[in-house]
Amino acid sequence: MYIHETQYRVRYGDTDQMKYVYYGHYARLFEIGRVEAMRALGFSYRQFEEEGVMMPVLDLHCNYLKPAFYDELLTIRTTVTEMPGVRIHFQYDILNEAGEHIHLGKTTLVFVQMHTNRPCRIPEHFAAALRPYFEQT
Amino acid sequence: MYIHETQYRVRYGDTDQMKYVYYGHYARLFEIGRVEAMRALGFSYRQFEEEGVMMPVLDLHCNYLKPAFYDELLTIRTTVTEMPGVRIHFQYDILNEAGEHIHLGKTTLVFVQMHTNRPCRIPEHFAAALRPYFEQT
Amino acid sequence: MYIHETQYRVRYGDTDQMKYVYYGHYARLFEIGRVEAMRALGFSYRQFEEEGVMMPVLDLHCNYLKPAFYDELLTIRTTVTEMPGVRIHFQYDILNEAGEHIHLGKTTLVFVQMHTNRPCRIPEHFAAALRPYFEQT
Amino acid sequence: MYIHETQYRVRYGDTDQMKYVYYGHYARLFEIGRVEAMRALGFSYRQFEEEGVMMPVLDLHCNYLKPAFYDELLTIRTTVTEMPGVRIHFQYDILNEAGEHIHLGKTTLVFVQMHTNRPCRIPEHFAAALRPYFEQT
Repeated sequence: MYIHETQYRVRYGDTDQMKYVYYGHYARLFEIGRVEAMRALGFSYRQFEEEGVMMPVLDLHCNYLKPAFYDELLTIRTTVTEMPGVRIHFQYDILNEAGEHIHLGKTTLVFVQMHTNRPCRIPEHFAAALRPYFEQT
Repeated sequence: MYIHETQYRVRYGDTDQMKYVYYGHYARLFEIGRVEAMRALGFSYRQFEEEGVMMPVLDLHCNYLKPAFYDELLTIRTTVTEMPGVRIHFQYDILNEAGEHIHLGKTTLVFVQMHTNRPCRIPEHFAAALRPYFEQT
Repeated sequence: MYIHETQYRVRYGDTDQMKYVYYGHYARLFEIGRVEAMRALGFSYRQFEEEGVMMPVLDLHCNYLKPAFYDELLTIRTTVTEMPGVRIHFQYDILNEAGEHIHLGKTTLVFVQMHTNRPCRIPEHFAAALRPYFEQT
Repeated sequence: MYIHETQYRVRYGDTDQMKYVYYGHYARLFEIGRVEAMRALGFSYRQFEEEGVMMPVLDLHCNYLKPAFYDELLTIRTTVTEMPGVRIHFQYDILNEAGEHIHLGKTTLVFVQMHTNRPCRIPEHFAAALRPYFEQT
């Protein structure tokens, strides 16, 4: 398993009149979580696209456990749960400032060769960086 | 089953640099779908809140089948799949102009009494409007 | 002057915890206003881009006169105030359901030849459609 | 003058199919700039609202000098240009990673007593924190 944490400050524009973070904004938090998780391994998604690989999202799941509120500094804990092949699974656990687990998200993304527009295996340099986190002991 | 259709025009601000509708925007389309489905039955969600009942979202699922593109006039087909009790399940099937099924979404919402902040049963006038769609023949 | 009106229903995701439409959402309403104003003349902005002309925004001005609220059906009145050359000026007057003037917006856009990335004059077929609205009597 | 700088990483959801940051997202960057500028002085906008003062936006101006691109780490330089009274003026200069000045924004906000819903003078503790930056030498 590869786990990475990053933080996100809730902005006014994220809230709705229920005073909660709007339910549709969590997908943005997941994007921040997985991109920063990749960056911490030395990979930028921008570079991936420049090298001809994109990663569209296949599915998304959100479990709203507790609301998030304006100006809270949330922790986004991103986990790559299994060694990716053609697909990569991310799990996102969001914690509020009190350390409460307020959200559980999951996404599946697929590696796609941009010039053929077809699925492909995870780029080898990215696989190499992830492998140590999935080796059996 | 209660089924309702509404349309949504994709805007520039919905697209991302992949030229697809950003994966995080679909939750907004679901909101439009379910609110218009309720309005077609004579209920506005605004009125619900004014009467002291809110409907926070418990979970969300998105299945990205095909991309949506700028300026497409999408059809959002919203289905209430079973007679609601304390919770209400919506399914959203999104079709593009060519009639292709490009997205499958699902949400669960819960009825909450605002003054107690506790779950409650579906307001009776809303239940009465839905019941004919779920009666056995 | 060319004037066109279209409508926009305020969604939950547009509101913030002040119960107002978030101040950053008006630019989206302007986009809807000007794209529908162009469509009413027979032009889609998608087609413009397909023909190699894009229209980036140079400046934006928002004047927040009164708040807009959840579920209101707003009227966006879009005006092309003068015959465009290399630039096109749009004015947006937003009215609420009570007919109150709640917002005044303005944008300047420039026509850009995509293959050279340089400003160009308004495409002639679009100019021809606008000219009758600016002819002196 | 009071000047404060903060940074913002451009996300995929901020881009549009022109590959630029969507013109409607800058208002969010301004919000981040001014809230962090206030926090650096020891004030949170959340606290202001809890103390009964809100700061709705009266007007907004955006000058799009150059585009911002995906994954760029932008610098938002927020300036309070004059000592606030009932209104407060913020200027936002946005710089890209190359140090280029890509955007100039301005907003006017008004202090409003929430229980009366009427304009009021800047809260004295906030004025006291700002005054040293506007004293003549």
